[in-house]
Amino acid sequence: MQVDLLILNAKVYNSYFKKFTEGNVAVVDGRFLYIGKRGTESFEAKEVMEAEGRFMVPGLVDIHLHIESTMVTPATFSYGLIQNGVTTIVPEPHEIANVFGLDGIREMIRASQDCTVDMLYAIPSSVPATSMETTGGAVEIADIDELLATERIICLGEIMNYVDVITDPDCKTNQILKHMRRHYPDLVIEGHCPKLLDLDLHRVIFAGVDSDHTHQTVEGMEARMAAGMFIEIQEKSMTEEVMSYLIQNDVDELFCFVTDDVMTDSLYRRGHLNHIVKKAIQMGMSPEKAIYASTFTPARRMKLHDRGAIAPNKVADFLLLSDLRELAIDQVYKHGRKVYDKKEAYRQEGKPNQFPAHYYQSVQLAPLTEADFTVRVGEDTADGRYAARVMLVKDGSTFTEEHHGEVEVRQGELSWQESPYGLIAVFERYGKNGNRGYGLIGGDTIKRGAIATTYSHDNHNLLVVGHNPQDMMLAANEVIRNQGGFCVVDDGRILANLHLPVGGILTEELLEKTAREVEELRQAMLSLGYRHYNPIMSISTHSLPVSPALKITDLGLIDVNEGKVVSLLIK
Amino acid sequence: MQVDLLILNAKVYNSYFKKFTEGNVAVVDGRFLYIGKRGTESFEAKEVMEAEGRFMVPGLVDIHLHIESTMVTPATFSYGLIQNGVTTIVPEPHEIANVFGLDGIREMIRASQDCTVDMLYAIPSSVPATSMETTGGAVEIADIDELLATERIICLGEIMNYVDVITDPDCKTNQILKHMRRHYPDLVIEGHCPKLLDLDLHRVIFAGVDSDHTHQTVEGMEARMAAGMFIEIQEKSMTEEVMSYLIQNDVDELFCFVTDDVMTDSLYRRGHLNHIVKKAIQMGMSPEKAIYASTFTPARRMKLHDRGAIAPNKVADFLLLSDLRELAIDQVYKHGRKVYDKKEAYRQEGKPNQFPAHYYQSVQLAPLTEADFTVRVGEDTADGRYAARVMLVKDGSTFTEEHHGEVEVRQGELSWQESPYGLIAVFERYGKNGNRGYGLIGGDTIKRGAIATTYSHDNHNLLVVGHNPQDMMLAANEVIRNQGGFCVVDDGRILANLHLPVGGILTEELLEKTAREVEELRQAMLSLGYRHYNPIMSISTHSLPVSPALKITDLGLIDVNEGKVVSLLIK
Repeated sequence: MQVDLLILNAKVYNSYFKKFTEGNVAVVDGRFLYIGKRGTESFEAKEVMEAEGRFMVPGLVDIHLHIESTMVTPATFSYGLIQNGVTTIVPEPHEIANVFGLDGIREMIRASQDCTVDMLYAIPSSVPATSMETTGGAVEIADIDELLATERIICLGEIMNYVDVITDPDCKTNQILKHMRRHYPDLVIEGHCPKLLDLDLHRVIFAGVDSDHTHQTVEGMEARMAAGMFIEIQEKSMTEEVMSYLIQNDVDELFCFVTDDVMTDSLYRRGHLNHIVKKAIQMGMSPEKAIYASTFTPARRMKLHDRGAIAPNKVADFLLLSDLRELAIDQVYKHGRKVYDKKEAYRQEGKPNQFPAHYYQSVQLAPLTEADFTVRVGEDTADGRYAARVMLVKDGSTFTEEHHGEVEVRQGELSWQESPYGLIAVFERYGKNGNRGYGLIGGDTIKRGAIATTYSHDNHNLLVVGHNPQDMMLAANEVIRNQGGFCVVDDGRILANLHLPVGGILTEELLEKTAREVEELRQAMLSLGYRHYNPIMSISTHSLPVSPALKITDLGLIDVNEGKVVSLLIK
Repeated sequence: MQVDLLILNAKVYNSYFKKFTEGNVAVVDGRFLYIGKRGTESFEAKEVMEAEGRFMVPGLVDIHLHIESTMVTPATFSYGLIQNGVTTIVPEPHEIANVFGLDGIREMIRASQDCTVDMLYAIPSSVPATSMETTGGAVEIADIDELLATERIICLGEIMNYVDVITDPDCKTNQILKHMRRHYPDLVIEGHCPKLLDLDLHRVIFAGVDSDHTHQTVEGMEARMAAGMFIEIQEKSMTEEVMSYLIQNDVDELFCFVTDDVMTDSLYRRGHLNHIVKKAIQMGMSPEKAIYASTFTPARRMKLHDRGAIAPNKVADFLLLSDLRELAIDQVYKHGRKVYDKKEAYRQEGKPNQFPAHYYQSVQLAPLTEADFTVRVGEDTADGRYAARVMLVKDGSTFTEEHHGEVEVRQGELSWQESPYGLIAVFERYGKNGNRGYGLIGGDTIKRGAIATTYSHDNHNLLVVGHNPQDMMLAANEVIRNQGGFCVVDDGRILANLHLPVGGILTEELLEKTAREVEELRQAMLSLGYRHYNPIMSISTHSLPVSPALKITDLGLIDVNEGKVVSLLIK
C-alpha cells in the first residue's frame, strides 16, 4: 500500500489509553492512516523516517490566547510557535477588534491563512468592554452573525462582563448570549469568571458560558468542574495546590493548559505552551497527563475532533522528542510535512505590508505640545490645595489602588509637577472626538522621565505617563510619528522606542528583533524606577476599565468597582 | 430568585466526578439552573418536590437504535421509552428508508416531532445495502444533502459496507464518505465493522468511520479504542470478558451502551436501555459507571452537549430512583416536567393515521395462487435428481449456512414438496419489476405449515417460507390483504396474524396489544418447529444480503461472501 510518510520505531503517544506504545506510523494525505507493527513490508512510502525510539506526541493545541499580547503578526507568531511544537491555536483578536472592529478580525484571519500553524479564531465578545472609553471599533451582534456566516469561527471568545451577566438581564452581553443560544446553540462560548462560586457561578454557566481560564484556586476549580465547566489552566494558576489537585484526582477530561498572554521575548527565549507543559511535568504531573492536557482535551473542548491524537484519520501534526520529561523537541511535523528540525536552520523571512495601507495609519493625532500636558481643572476652581484621586501602581499586579493625595491648583491649572505624583494622560487617537483624560499616578511606576504608548488595553488610545511635559511630549510625538508603539524618554533622551505600526499595536519586524526591543523597552522602564515583574503589562492595563480599582480612559478617571467616570479633584 | 421547579434532598448524580452528592436542584425554562445546598430560602419555586433522599440521575440517552425493529411508530416507541427512563434517542430509520426512501425518513422525523422523547435522527447511509435486491426506496448523496439542509440530523448512520470501504475505492459508500469529509467534516459517522483488526480497521477509521456497535471481543474492542473508535456496547457484546475489561480499565470515556434492536414484547416486558444498565450493574459494573455510559458518553459522542448530565444549563431530563442498583424508576422528568410517575396511571392513547394515505398501501401485489409456489427450473433441465443449494437456518444466529442437498426435477419443475426441505420465496412488492426468487430451506426453521411476511430486511419484499403451496398461498395473501405484517398458517388454519400496515413494517396499534401479538406470533412460529431464541429476527434476516452466508432476495439466492446471485441448482 502506498503512503506518503512512514515513521519507524517510535514511542507513540496513545491519547485514549494515555500511554506510549512502540510502533510504526503511516501518513497519507496529511492524516495518520495507521499506527502499529506493520512497516516497510506493508507500506511503500515516499519518505521513511527512522525515529530511533524517540517519543512521538501530537502537536500542541492552545485554545486560549491573544496574538496581540505578543505584539507580532500571525506570521511571526506562527514562526515562533512551530519551533515550540504548537501546531493549532484558537486566538481571540480582542485588541485588533478594539482598533478596527469587524474589519480588524477579518484582517487577522486573512493574515493567518498562509501560516504553518492552524489558527482557528474566536470572536471577541466584549468589544468595547465598557461604554466608558472610545475605541476604534466595536463588535455588535450583527458583526458576530457576519463573521459566523463568512469565516471559519471556532468559538465565542471570553465573556468578560460576567458581573453584568448576573446582575443585568438586558445588558449587551446577555443579549449576545441569548442570540447565541437561539441561533448558534452548538457554538463553544469561552468564559472569564474569577472568584465566582455557588449560585452566581451556576448562573453564569446557565447563561451558556462553560469554561474559565482565569486564576484558579482549588475550591473554585472544583466547584467549576462539578458544575460542568471546562478549566483552562494558565501559568498563573499553576500553584502547588492546584497542580496537586490536578495530579491526584481523576479530572483529566475536565481541564487543559493554555497560555493566554505571552510577551514577545518570553516566546522567543522561553517558549510557549511547551513551556507550560514542561513546567507541569517539573511540578510532578506525569508527561502522559500533561500531554493529554495540551493536545487531546483542548482539541475536544473546541470540537476539533480531527486532531489532538495520533490515531487514524487525525491530522498528522506531531513532534518527535529526544527527551520526554524535558519535552526536548527534535522535529515538528504539520499535516505530515516536516516544518521544524532542530538540526536545520530555522529562519524567519520578513513579511512586510501584510495589512491594508490604512492599518499603518491608525494614530489620528497631530503632534502634541507641552500645553497638552497642562491640566485645567476649571476657571471656577479657586487657587489652593485640593484632595485628588491618585492611581497607585502596585508591583506584581495589574490592579491599581485609588489613593487620595494633595495637589495645588493655581489659576485653574493643576500644579502636578510640584506634587509627589506623575501625570497620566490619555488622548483619543481615532479622530472620533478628540477626548483626553488626565490623572495623577504614583506607587511603583516610573520616578522620572516619560513613557508613551498606544499599546494600552483595551481601547489602545495614546497613553502617556511622565514627570515633565517636555519628556512626555517627546515620547508621545515619537509614538505618533511611528504610528504606534512605545517610547521611553528620560531628560530629553529616547531610551527605548518600539514601533508597533500595525494598528498601533503590532509589528511586522522579525521575532528576534522585536524580542530584543521588548527586552530593551522593559529595561528602559525599569531604569526610570518602575517596579514590576512586567512593567509593559502594568502600564498597558492602566487604561483597562474592567480591571480594578482606579483606571483612566479618554473619558477621564474610572472608578472600576463603581463602573463610572470620577473627577480628578475630590471637591 | 424565581424558578420553575425545586427538587429538595436528592442524591444527585454528578457526571464530572461520577459520584452522587446530596443536595437540591433548581430548574428554570426546562434546564437545570442550580445544584447545591441552597433551598427554599433562595428560590421561590412554582413547584417544590421532596426527593426524600432518592437518587436523581440524567435521562438515559440511546444513540444507536432502529425504531422499526420494534415494529411500532415513534409515538408508541416514545410511550414505551419514557416509563423506562429513556429521554433522548438517535434512531436510524433504515427500514422505512428501504420502503419509501427520502420520503420515509422525512415522515419518520415528522412523526417524531410531538413525541415526549427527543428523537434526533441518523441518516441511513446504506440504502439499499446491495444492488442484489429491489427496494422501494434508496438514499443517494443528493438525499443526504437534502436531509442535512432541511432537517435536524445528528449523524450519518452505520456504514454497513465496511468491506467495500476497504476494497473498492469507488464504491457508493466511499463516494458518500468522501462527500461527507468535504462538505460536512464535523458530522458524526457511525460504524459497523465486526471482526476487523489492524490495517483494515485503521483504513475504515481513516475513511471517517469512528464508532462500532457490532459484537465485541476484548481484543477487537481494545484495538478499536486504541485507534480512537467509540464503542457502543449492545446486549450481545455484554459477555463476562468484555464487561470485566470495561469495569477494570480506565476506558470510561471510550464507550457507551446502546440497544440497536429491541422487539416489541421485550420493550413492553423487560424495558429498554434501562435493562442494559441494570444488567451491567448486575454483572459488576458500578452504578456510577453504568449511568455514565448511558447518559454522558452517548450524549457527547453525538455532540449533544446540552444533555447527559445534571449540571447548570443542561436540559432538565432526569429520573428519580428508589433503588440505585435495581434502577427502580419512580419518576421521569423531561425538560423539567414530570412525564411518568410510577404511582400514577400511565396509558397510551391510540394515534391512527399518522402517515400519508399511501403509506398504508405499500404492498403492490395481486393475490397469489398455488401456481406461484411452483418452481420452474427451465425447460432444458432434463428430469432427474440434482444437487441444490439449501439455506440452512441455525438456532441462535442470523447467519445461515449453504448446504447442498438433492432434489428431483420433473418436466422443468422442482419437486420441492417431495424433498426434505421447505420452499422459501421472495416476491418483489413495490410494483417495480415483478421479480421473484425461489430457494430451498432447512435446518432450524419450521417443519410444516407456512410463514409469510413483509418484515424482511432490508428490502421488505414479501417473503414466504413453507412446506405446501396451500398454506404458503394463504399466509401470503393474508399479508397482502393486510398490506403488510406476518402471518403463520398450519394446515389451512391461521395461527398468528400481525398487521403491520405502515409501509408493511410498522403498526399504529397500542404497545401492549402489539407486544401480545408479537408473543403469539413467536409462539406460533415455534409451534411449527422453528428452533431459535428469536424466530422473528431469524426469518426477517433470510433476505438480508449482507449477512452470511446464503440468503435470498427477489433476484434469487445470494452467496453473501461472494457478493453475487447464485442458481438454485448446482449444474
